[in-house]
Amino acid sequence: MAEAVRQQAEVVRRLKQEKAGPEEIAEQVAKLLEMKAAICPEEGKQKFVLKTPKGARDYNPKQMAIREKVFNIIVSCFKRHGAETIDTPVFELKETLTGKYGEDSKLIYDLKDQGGELLSLRYDLTVPFARYLAMNKISNIKRYHIAKVYRRDNPAMTRGRYREFYQCDFDIAGQYDPMIPDAECLKIVHEILSALQLGDFLIKVNDRRILDGLFAVCGVPDSKFRTICSTVDKLDKITWEDVKSEMVGEKGLSPEVADRIGEYVQLHGGLGLIEELLQDPKLSQNKLAREGLGDMKLLFEYLVLFGISAQISFDLSLARGLDYYTGVIYEAVLLQPQNDHTEESVGVGSVAGGGRYDGLVGMFDPKGRKVPCVGVSIGIERIFSIMEQKAEASEEKVRTTETQVLVASAQKKLLDERLKLVSELWDSGIKAEMLYKKNPKLLNQLQYCEETGIPLVAILGEQELKDGVVKLRDVTTREEVDICRGNLMEEIKRRTCLS
Amino acid sequence: MAEAVRQQAEVVRRLKQEKAGPEEIAEQVAKLLEMKAAICPEEGKQKFVLKTPKGARDYNPKQMAIREKVFNIIVSCFKRHGAETIDTPVFELKETLTGKYGEDSKLIYDLKDQGGELLSLRYDLTVPFARYLAMNKISNIKRYHIAKVYRRDNPAMTRGRYREFYQCDFDIAGQYDPMIPDAECLKIVHEILSALQLGDFLIKVNDRRILDGLFAVCGVPDSKFRTICSTVDKLDKITWEDVKSEMVGEKGLSPEVADRIGEYVQLHGGLGLIEELLQDPKLSQNKLAREGLGDMKLLFEYLVLFGISAQISFDLSLARGLDYYTGVIYEAVLLQPQNDHTEESVGVGSVAGGGRYDGLVGMFDPKGRKVPCVGVSIGIERIFSIMEQKAEASEEKVRTTETQVLVASAQKKLLDERLKLVSELWDSGIKAEMLYKKNPKLLNQLQYCEETGIPLVAILGEQELKDGVVKLRDVTTREEVDICRGNLMEEIKRRTCLS
Repeated sequence: MAEAVRQQAEVVRRLKQEKAGPEEIAEQVAKLLEMKAAICPEEGKQKFVLKTPKGARDYNPKQMAIREKVFNIIVSCFKRHGAETIDTPVFELKETLTGKYGEDSKLIYDLKDQGGELLSLRYDLTVPFARYLAMNKISNIKRYHIAKVYRRDNPAMTRGRYREFYQCDFDIAGQYDPMIPDAECLKIVHEILSALQLGDFLIKVNDRRILDGLFAVCGVPDSKFRTICSTVDKLDKITWEDVKSEMVGEKGLSPEVADRIGEYVQLHGGLGLIEELLQDPKLSQNKLAREGLGDMKLLFEYLVLFGISAQISFDLSLARGLDYYTGVIYEAVLLQPQNDHTEESVGVGSVAGGGRYDGLVGMFDPKGRKVPCVGVSIGIERIFSIMEQKAEASEEKVRTTETQVLVASAQKKLLDERLKLVSELWDSGIKAEMLYKKNPKLLNQLQYCEETGIPLVAILGEQELKDGVVKLRDVTTREEVDICRGNLMEEIKRRTCLS
Repeated sequence: MAEAVRQQAEVVRRLKQEKAGPEEIAEQVAKLLEMKAAICPEEGKQKFVLKTPKGARDYNPKQMAIREKVFNIIVSCFKRHGAETIDTPVFELKETLTGKYGEDSKLIYDLKDQGGELLSLRYDLTVPFARYLAMNKISNIKRYHIAKVYRRDNPAMTRGRYREFYQCDFDIAGQYDPMIPDAECLKIVHEILSALQLGDFLIKVNDRRILDGLFAVCGVPDSKFRTICSTVDKLDKITWEDVKSEMVGEKGLSPEVADRIGEYVQLHGGLGLIEELLQDPKLSQNKLAREGLGDMKLLFEYLVLFGISAQISFDLSLARGLDYYTGVIYEAVLLQPQNDHTEESVGVGSVAGGGRYDGLVGMFDPKGRKVPCVGVSIGIERIFSIMEQKAEASEEKVRTTETQVLVASAQKKLLDERLKLVSELWDSGIKAEMLYKKNPKLLNQLQYCEETGIPLVAILGEQELKDGVVKLRDVTTREEVDICRGNLMEEIKRRTCLS
């Protein structure tokens, strides 16, 4: 046992040396302490393990500044499209989530039964949205919802995946003319990814009805549609040969059927491909496929009008995991790795996805009344990770406060005067700070500005007080000007507006 | 049993008639369905109970609009004071919360043990903050944190109290000169309550050291300080006679000791009272009381400089519930009922509270290293309730979107033109919508604007397209002007900036 402890201590030492993530280190330290506690319970007991739960993380002020920037871009896009917002509780009745996520249900966090209702933490924002619509008998809404969701997964946290993570959803519910709201969802993804400046991206589009039609004409038995769907979905990660061998080996398709599927699902293109498939002698015989292709054509026409068709690819290999999609589905991927230096970079991957789900609200409605929905979810955690890496790489200082001016004093015994001035500044809406010291040194006050990025210092001294002025110092240029006290607010506003 | 069901059905019928809260009705309906299910399991099974968990609620778009307004006011105040923000997970290791809340620990929500760590939902934001400081060895920070916390309470939801509710915390951690950060916390409460326009308010201030000193000189045994503290805290709800009888009857003080306490705790005032007590022959003999009074004097001097002392009352009856306070404590109350019409109004009550807690971070630090902290929590749920009641009472329409213009068509077959125009508007940053119909009627489009408060309509017709113009209609005045297509964005921006 002592040897095991020694080895574990070595693991911790190495991780620290390699500057591993604090989460990973904390976990290994916890393990070490546990082992020590087993040998010597007294010692172990005193050590309180200071960590966040597995798969969860704190956001420090720098990370919050990045998060706020990203949210602002996303929310302003949602608002530009006239969306309202709602919020739902972090937990739902357990039965609300039951039967919505298939196999993934095992990843749901349940609350302990402490008497009363059985509750679970929400797994996504879509099911609570559907519950909300059914409960309030709402048949038309365009809403966004940004909130944390919970999955007992074993995620690779270096890739920006967690057990507690944000979702950023935009959905349009209502009975409308075909593909108009669907096209708007794609326009929104396009606007957000462009505004975030994450580099080139591609939005893949497909339709569940086309996939189902395609499976049918290729000779896949109805009962295997779903499982074959999930095999097809792997085509962006593994080769067609591997996909085929899974279809034949694991899923029991004949090689001929698999080959027929292969001819279709390796296709991708635009309006041209849609036209081609509409003429396809086999596919055009299938009603579902015909409907899906017809709508896909309409969608592309709208995307052309929106001026975004160059970044959209009709891709027959796109299948998406969730069961509840009933029509168009899409997924946005970044085209370049964001960080070439490390292998474990956040890398290329899906940063948004969604589709049409016309049946989900009906599952909640007592009368089975359906509300057609289409929506998109922005993969915000991955975007945070990319932005954080970028911020670190650029070495550009991220400000974590918005303070415009520090109220400082050049001599001792001016605390009262500083308190009076800072209070005046606050009351006129200026973002101001002062050091919480009776007699701080001027140098320390100036250093504080340099460290935190405060651009201006309002310096009080006995002479300035006598003259009714304040010495306004520009932290970067070190220029100082005496400003008449009555003009101070205006001058600060003018200067910090320009900078 | 059938009779019980009949009675329960009657309860539901009455609640509906009385227009009770949807939460309350849903709960009684759930009970009814449960009873029905017990009689006839088949029938019960089909009925899925559509509700949010007890004590939790959805926010609809109108409530979200109010929430956003309130948050904006609060966050802009925090930022004006140079605060950073952090975020922590919704759950913590169970042991992180253990031993921090005394008796209230029974109200903590635990997660089910699904293998792995034992977790609990956070009970407040202060303990996670202290854990964060200790874990990251931070000894100086001024941060705010707005997030939901969880308490398995049985709250009166009509009074704006829930099991899932927001806290809005601002704290200053660090070793500073006395009472400067403490005074800033009070300034912040004053700024926020003023900006929210909730009517007159009063901020009561006291100090745990003054209370402890007072108990000592009155002859309360050390072991009873805390329990007597909580009895004193009831003085804002019940009379001195009732408080005294609790002290004597339940807590076992002698009537003489209680009377001596009574002489002090019924006092409230300002600088004058502080000076008086500093001269008090008994109290001035106690070291703790002397320290507390000295600091209180300093605090009031700073509050005078901040210009807010008129709304601050040094109140010896203020004790506050939480154990971890070590110095100054405060609580803000609204002075007028917000709604005189209903008895169950949101009513007068505490809307902010806080104090100094110099020992909490040390409880987490492996070396017991202390980080002095002082902070304030804004009682945001109560404020939401007041604002919601106000909004309802005023009958002023709360807009839930910010859409500036609806793109409409006067004739059929103009979908493509509408899509093109709305896309152009989005791309130039204008908040725009269109109806998701191929050929909507103009009347329906105008009605949509009236319902949702969209101020402008950009109308396309064949003539307008030919002339290269758009008809811009003011929804309120019904005035229409032809605007050259190239000037449209500018004109919309100009008009919606003014309105």
